[in-house]
Amino acid sequence: MNILAFGEIMMRLSVPDYKFLTQTNELNYIITGTGLNILSGLKNFGYNTYMLTKLPNNNVGKASSANIRKLGVKDDFITYGGNHIGVYFLENGYGERPSEVTYLNRLNSSFCESKLQDYDIDKCLEEMDIVHICGIAMQLTDSVKEIALELARKSYEKGIKVFFDFNFRQSLNPERTYDDLVNDYKKILPYCHGLFASYRDINKILNIDSLNIKSSSELIKKEYDIGIVAGTMRRFDDMNNRFIKGYISNDDGYFESREYKLEIYDRVGAGDGYVAGIIYSYLENMKSEDIVEFGVASSVLAHTTYGDNSLVSTGHVLRLMNNEKIDILR
Amino acid sequence: MNILAFGEIMMRLSVPDYKFLTQTNELNYIITGTGLNILSGLKNFGYNTYMLTKLPNNNVGKASSANIRKLGVKDDFITYGGNHIGVYFLENGYGERPSEVTYLNRLNSSFCESKLQDYDIDKCLEEMDIVHICGIAMQLTDSVKEIALELARKSYEKGIKVFFDFNFRQSLNPERTYDDLVNDYKKILPYCHGLFASYRDINKILNIDSLNIKSSSELIKKEYDIGIVAGTMRRFDDMNNRFIKGYISNDDGYFESREYKLEIYDRVGAGDGYVAGIIYSYLENMKSEDIVEFGVASSVLAHTTYGDNSLVSTGHVLRLMNNEKIDILR
Amino acid sequence: MNILAFGEIMMRLSVPDYKFLTQTNELNYIITGTGLNILSGLKNFGYNTYMLTKLPNNNVGKASSANIRKLGVKDDFITYGGNHIGVYFLENGYGERPSEVTYLNRLNSSFCESKLQDYDIDKCLEEMDIVHICGIAMQLTDSVKEIALELARKSYEKGIKVFFDFNFRQSLNPERTYDDLVNDYKKILPYCHGLFASYRDINKILNIDSLNIKSSSELIKKEYDIGIVAGTMRRFDDMNNRFIKGYISNDDGYFESREYKLEIYDRVGAGDGYVAGIIYSYLENMKSEDIVEFGVASSVLAHTTYGDNSLVSTGHVLRLMNNEKIDILR
Amino acid sequence: MNILAFGEIMMRLSVPDYKFLTQTNELNYIITGTGLNILSGLKNFGYNTYMLTKLPNNNVGKASSANIRKLGVKDDFITYGGNHIGVYFLENGYGERPSEVTYLNRLNSSFCESKLQDYDIDKCLEEMDIVHICGIAMQLTDSVKEIALELARKSYEKGIKVFFDFNFRQSLNPERTYDDLVNDYKKILPYCHGLFASYRDINKILNIDSLNIKSSSELIKKEYDIGIVAGTMRRFDDMNNRFIKGYISNDDGYFESREYKLEIYDRVGAGDGYVAGIIYSYLENMKSEDIVEFGVASSVLAHTTYGDNSLVSTGHVLRLMNNEKIDILR
Amino acid sequence: MNILAFGEIMMRLSVPDYKFLTQTNELNYIITGTGLNILSGLKNFGYNTYMLTKLPNNNVGKASSANIRKLGVKDDFITYGGNHIGVYFLENGYGERPSEVTYLNRLNSSFCESKLQDYDIDKCLEEMDIVHICGIAMQLTDSVKEIALELARKSYEKGIKVFFDFNFRQSLNPERTYDDLVNDYKKILPYCHGLFASYRDINKILNIDSLNIKSSSELIKKEYDIGIVAGTMRRFDDMNNRFIKGYISNDDGYFESREYKLEIYDRVGAGDGYVAGIIYSYLENMKSEDIVEFGVASSVLAHTTYGDNSLVSTGHVLRLMNNEKIDILR
Amino acid sequence: MNILAFGEIMMRLSVPDYKFLTQTNELNYIITGTGLNILSGLKNFGYNTYMLTKLPNNNVGKASSANIRKLGVKDDFITYGGNHIGVYFLENGYGERPSEVTYLNRLNSSFCESKLQDYDIDKCLEEMDIVHICGIAMQLTDSVKEIALELARKSYEKGIKVFFDFNFRQSLNPERTYDDLVNDYKKILPYCHGLFASYRDINKILNIDSLNIKSSSELIKKEYDIGIVAGTMRRFDDMNNRFIKGYISNDDGYFESREYKLEIYDRVGAGDGYVAGIIYSYLENMKSEDIVEFGVASSVLAHTTYGDNSLVSTGHVLRLMNNEKIDILR
Repeated sequence: MNILAFGEIMMRLSVPDYKFLTQTNELNYIITGTGLNILSGLKNFGYNTYMLTKLPNNNVGKASSANIRKLGVKDDFITYGGNHIGVYFLENGYGERPSEVTYLNRLNSSFCESKLQDYDIDKCLEEMDIVHICGIAMQLTDSVKEIALELARKSYEKGIKVFFDFNFRQSLNPERTYDDLVNDYKKILPYCHGLFASYRDINKILNIDSLNIKSSSELIKKEYDIGIVAGTMRRFDDMNNRFIKGYISNDDGYFESREYKLEIYDRVGAGDGYVAGIIYSYLENMKSEDIVEFGVASSVLAHTTYGDNSLVSTGHVLRLMNNEKIDILR
Repeated sequence: MNILAFGEIMMRLSVPDYKFLTQTNELNYIITGTGLNILSGLKNFGYNTYMLTKLPNNNVGKASSANIRKLGVKDDFITYGGNHIGVYFLENGYGERPSEVTYLNRLNSSFCESKLQDYDIDKCLEEMDIVHICGIAMQLTDSVKEIALELARKSYEKGIKVFFDFNFRQSLNPERTYDDLVNDYKKILPYCHGLFASYRDINKILNIDSLNIKSSSELIKKEYDIGIVAGTMRRFDDMNNRFIKGYISNDDGYFESREYKLEIYDRVGAGDGYVAGIIYSYLENMKSEDIVEFGVASSVLAHTTYGDNSLVSTGHVLRLMNNEKIDILR
Repeated sequence: MNILAFGEIMMRLSVPDYKFLTQTNELNYIITGTGLNILSGLKNFGYNTYMLTKLPNNNVGKASSANIRKLGVKDDFITYGGNHIGVYFLENGYGERPSEVTYLNRLNSSFCESKLQDYDIDKCLEEMDIVHICGIAMQLTDSVKEIALELARKSYEKGIKVFFDFNFRQSLNPERTYDDLVNDYKKILPYCHGLFASYRDINKILNIDSLNIKSSSELIKKEYDIGIVAGTMRRFDDMNNRFIKGYISNDDGYFESREYKLEIYDRVGAGDGYVAGIIYSYLENMKSEDIVEFGVASSVLAHTTYGDNSLVSTGHVLRLMNNEKIDILR
Repeated sequence: MNILAFGEIMMRLSVPDYKFLTQTNELNYIITGTGLNILSGLKNFGYNTYMLTKLPNNNVGKASSANIRKLGVKDDFITYGGNHIGVYFLENGYGERPSEVTYLNRLNSSFCESKLQDYDIDKCLEEMDIVHICGIAMQLTDSVKEIALELARKSYEKGIKVFFDFNFRQSLNPERTYDDLVNDYKKILPYCHGLFASYRDINKILNIDSLNIKSSSELIKKEYDIGIVAGTMRRFDDMNNRFIKGYISNDDGYFESREYKLEIYDRVGAGDGYVAGIIYSYLENMKSEDIVEFGVASSVLAHTTYGDNSLVSTGHVLRLMNNEKIDILR
Repeated sequence: MNILAFGEIMMRLSVPDYKFLTQTNELNYIITGTGLNILSGLKNFGYNTYMLTKLPNNNVGKASSANIRKLGVKDDFITYGGNHIGVYFLENGYGERPSEVTYLNRLNSSFCESKLQDYDIDKCLEEMDIVHICGIAMQLTDSVKEIALELARKSYEKGIKVFFDFNFRQSLNPERTYDDLVNDYKKILPYCHGLFASYRDINKILNIDSLNIKSSSELIKKEYDIGIVAGTMRRFDDMNNRFIKGYISNDDGYFESREYKLEIYDRVGAGDGYVAGIIYSYLENMKSEDIVEFGVASSVLAHTTYGDNSLVSTGHVLRLMNNEKIDILR
Repeated sequence: MNILAFGEIMMRLSVPDYKFLTQTNELNYIITGTGLNILSGLKNFGYNTYMLTKLPNNNVGKASSANIRKLGVKDDFITYGGNHIGVYFLENGYGERPSEVTYLNRLNSSFCESKLQDYDIDKCLEEMDIVHICGIAMQLTDSVKEIALELARKSYEKGIKVFFDFNFRQSLNPERTYDDLVNDYKKILPYCHGLFASYRDINKILNIDSLNIKSSSELIKKEYDIGIVAGTMRRFDDMNNRFIKGYISNDDGYFESREYKLEIYDRVGAGDGYVAGIIYSYLENMKSEDIVEFGVASSVLAHTTYGDNSLVSTGHVLRLMNNEKIDILR
């Protein structure tokens, strides 16, 4: 199974030991990005994965590629040019103190300034089975949006399944109105086979209000002829415990996983763990109950691992799904 | 709002990764002290803060000042001389294993050996609105006690509000009896506008026994004509969970906050977080219910941050008071 | 009280910050081994402890001795030769993600290839009161098994009490069948005064099936004329909380401790903490209820400390037994 | 003596242990910038220093201020807005392998996009004796150039001495031609009292070719009525040793220091060490021979300290000038 | 250009900060091996590189592959099985204190126990232009020697050029006599197109004594019809300076590079830097004088980089060859 | 050979990476002291070593003992009490920037306040062959001086050879005049068999002026009937290179070693390396030329190792004496 993801690569600079940025002069960096995180997970589940992006043509770009390859994701289709990459700082929270993410300039990155002609899309798609496009790509620059749409369209025409990941953040591009975003999303949805979205996001697109997630997901599935719609729901109790469960709507109906208590070591990228889990279990033709359970267990584990990249194996996920209580694997 | 704190500056040497001191040769240092920690918090809440202390006249003193300035606390009134600073080692506990604090020599520090003439108190007080004096200053050397009393008296005379922080630790100076300490505290109380004290400490001073905290705090408030008396109460349940709530007694009556579950990353300095929170919310004329809630939320957050210094912003505190459940602030 | 332990010394290479081995190039090493971990605990409780083992005759062997001495365990009886030491990698889990242990070659270590004549057993035993032998020693190479048996026999003859620690892991030596292991264990049991074993392990030896731990432990105690049989039992609830309690069977009957909630920082070596606690409290002639309580409290604390070696003091253990809730020891 | 510097603040991310960026995921950050580095040096020599710049209005900006204050440089005149700061990566070289500097986007930083009205220049200059302007400020955006010129002009009118630091790097702004840069420099030179420049740079401005540094510096001094022109010259021998010496041209003539062998720990910022040294020794009215010697000794030491900021004291510099061979200062 | 290397992969555990292993519990690991180091260099020079080896089928094997990919070397032909990898400890020397390397068990690694049938040699060679075989492979186990010979033979038959790297270390396998080694080397030489060897090693093979390196290298070139023989020579002076120069013998004659002074940061792997440099410059058809200069400059730089892997680019090497003195590349 | 050293144990807190204390919040600690450093060296050369000192009775004292044992020095005679230990900060210099040592309070340490009755000197001396007393012990408190003298006297009476180490630092105790120090030294010299002293120090004691080191050392040897007088001489050239050579005066005459160029990684403790080397080579009855050569080679190597403790083996020293140029020991 060959999977291509298109999206932005960023550098995350995190402050160790739950400190604030003012409390240390040491930082840890990882190379991240929604598409990359999902590919990382799919590689660990056993697939061939390829990243489609543009990186700066300097030592930072080289280090980014090296880290991408280390994750097992192939860098064959990455192009190089420009000198900027999006950078974000992460100050990890603790207990009821939230983690804080601070973005530096993002819209002037090599990726955000990349043009359609920087990529040879036809060649990239030659041996692909699946393409993943992150919703954020639709909200950055016009040229990146154009590339995303063109990639979706061509994939659709070639019969390659497109998975799209809602990631509505208007703040990413202050020059674009909220209605613009909705319109852009509507343009790509007809090409999508799989959709990851929250209740709130679906309702925005459908411009509806009062439904529950079951109805909303079934409605959008029908409206855009989508193969699978999936997402997660979070809850907390009055002892500050966090819980998560997942849902999917596919041709067999609507399914929810059981609820898992979260133990959070590194929150960022946990949603990508869900996406990787669902794509894998769906492509492996697990039964619907297992698809959603596999996805949410993958996400639960992504909360427990350092960094944004998905790193657990199928063994990790299956043990959690099966509720095996193991302290030490020898 | 300009705030001056008088007190000892110490160097804390902590062992990383919950290890014992024997398990590593790496230490992290911070510059700490009750007064400094509170000023740090008040600076983050938006006030101008000044530290009044004496530091060794060597590279350790220089590094101390640099770290004080980094916290946003001004070093204009710090004097230098001698060659010693109090040092304590912190071995962080985990779960039911307590943290362990080991003090090296403290009474021979530049601060503890400092004399009244080392400081130009009148000049320091020129533009001050508030002065904070830590109770520990009353229990070290005679000369430090003298300075603290003189500072309190002069502030009182100039109409500057004095906040005093009970910190009864007889072990600090084995040559002084318990009755000595009580007497010294009684000397400074008439000059105090704000008082931070536990149930146990108030009862010691008042030499009373059976009252509850409401009665005790109201009694001491009345006895010494204090504007606000404040403190915290801790509780644990049989699953080893810790809880905290705060109280204040002011002219409007006695108020308790709701109870918060604690998630403890670094226990030391959490009391200073309460003091900073109460002073700020009191000076900002919040209503009494909010004063105590702000104070205890500030303390709850101080349990979640590395180091003794108070570092959270009003935004952090208000979100917790308002029970906003946020995992990641973007 | 002089205590000798015979067993393998290993090097543990752990990955910091809950990362996977692929996520960093930094490792922390400790020198470990069941016998060493127990001796470390007993040294901290106040006994003289001696390690009997063979280390590689190179810089790794030298560093191992240095670390053993640092724990307060004497290296007088350690012999040197060969060039290999068993190494294991530890990737710490978090929440429901288990820790993962990966062993490199173990059977070709200097210890596993050591011969009876490498040790002067009579000399080692001259001033000993107690000898500890780890069950793993019975499952490695034939020569190590021979040494363990000879040491047990000679100790028994000299009236030195032998404590034996079941540690049934057939995977350690794929060339030996399960029945072989049971037979080997049966050979050493007649020399044992103290036995650490789980319900499952006892039943394997006795070849019984349906009893509870009380009956099983009493049965094996009687069958092999053992002074004290001890072990722990673990449980988890549906909020992923872990609990532990201990049991002993001695001449006074069968005793269970109360149940403790576990807060796990470093799981490996927690069983050794139990053994150290039981041996100490037993030798100190505590009453039976306290023996088991001391043992399990020692184990609870071993879950909270970095590394496999037992490091807590009697003070730590007694405070936990007495349910003193202390956040910071000053 | 009060000194203000106007210029860009950047974040330097350096790779530890002479590794390449691909070889680690750990970075160290410092807050840097020509103006800041010089102020840091002048503060260590005993002056009051103030930074005039604009920082992003987020946690990165806050941490930048904290680090500026730690250096002893006052942040009173710093303004906040926008969300970007210039970042550069430093991979330290070793021996004949050069250090490598990789810049991310710089022209979209809060500083580079700042406008004249973001600063209250009159207020900043109220109590200043000296203003330093970095040549780089003239080559970034039009608005920053405008601010630099306005600041120079107003300082000149108020009789505040302006020190200007040539830093010809055309690559900083690809949209500006080389002739543009020369013209801009010529606009600011009439306001300058002190000038730091290399032989190559002076000749560019004067559009001359064949002179030596003595003649060039004397010529530009005369042409623009400058109080002091200063710079350094570097040389290496065939054993890869590096050497440096300094020159000044002032009203007393042309002076060169003796030549020092360089031992380089951290090359970046060494030029700023020279500037700080010259400004201090010049303002202290040392004799000309000592001014240049103090300057170059300060620069030699700046090669030996971590980071770009100048950190040595007058004691450090004087000992080196006096050729005292001390291994350990106690 | 596609290049395959066959050889052992090891884990190097190095002690930071020039400490001895007893002085810290922190280690840094890299994945290394002669073949891998050379491929890493060739990848940085621009070629496609593939590693042929066997790794343990566990988390250590997985991490090894990830690190190999990060170097840009493809892991497509790596097989997995067994559980052991060769490990060596590196304690870096300083000045006249030598670095110390301590090997743990190596002969029982997954690689050393691998069999011919573990590899599909024909498939590996399908698109290869060059094969590198490390001399160490000839000295480990019989089965590894068999694989190396088979690979050399098949490559030779397919017209793929074989480069062989002398690495005479009898201590690697105490069961094999010195004459055995010589005989094994003689078996592989007929298949070799390129040979890396020292004066001492060539004379051992040719069983000659008094010649100089020019004669020796020309003699072995002729005797075995080798395309290029290459090696380095080291010298030190009485100020403890180290120097290196290289030689080659090819069809155009014998050539020596100029001599370079070494600045040594990490000595291990410097020879592999030479090999990578020579293979690249030879395959690029540089003229003979440049081939040897490029090779030795690559080696000089390999002394300045952390780790054993060759990491410099052609730009780095050419700048050094051209004697450009650059402190900072911007 | 059993060797006892009496002296102060200190904690050294060093700043990593050649930073100033203001540039980081990370420190590395080692346990140090002249006596300990020498014992550490003698242990590595093969002797049994015992430390006689008093440590604080807290976690810092415990960690000190653990580190002492790790060095292979026995802690059997160490007593515990009080709560303070001398601490010094080390900021490592680089090139011509000197290292800086900052002492905190030292005279109030557990050791400096210890009394004669804290030690059972007769028992300590029972099996000793050699006693080392550090000159610093003579300059601290009266009670420590008394202990040192009593130890020297008793050793002398029992025929145990006393080695004494001049370490004239008047600043250690400002209350004692320079003449006091000279008088105290004169009291202990009659008991000394070995003496380590510089030219300057000998002349102070003998109150002479114009002699060379040969004459001075021979004179003091004769005056106090000393077996061996030894010391080092340092020199630097105009390329900032440092050189060292050693001398001894014994019954066979006066001997100087050859001169070694120094490569300095960690300067502190290098003198202790000389002492350890001389004591060992002297006790091993090497010939005089080798005694001095062994001593200085040991000192040269002590400059290359991290920390103050002597850590090299006889192998290290002999290879340097024999001028073997080895980059990597395998």
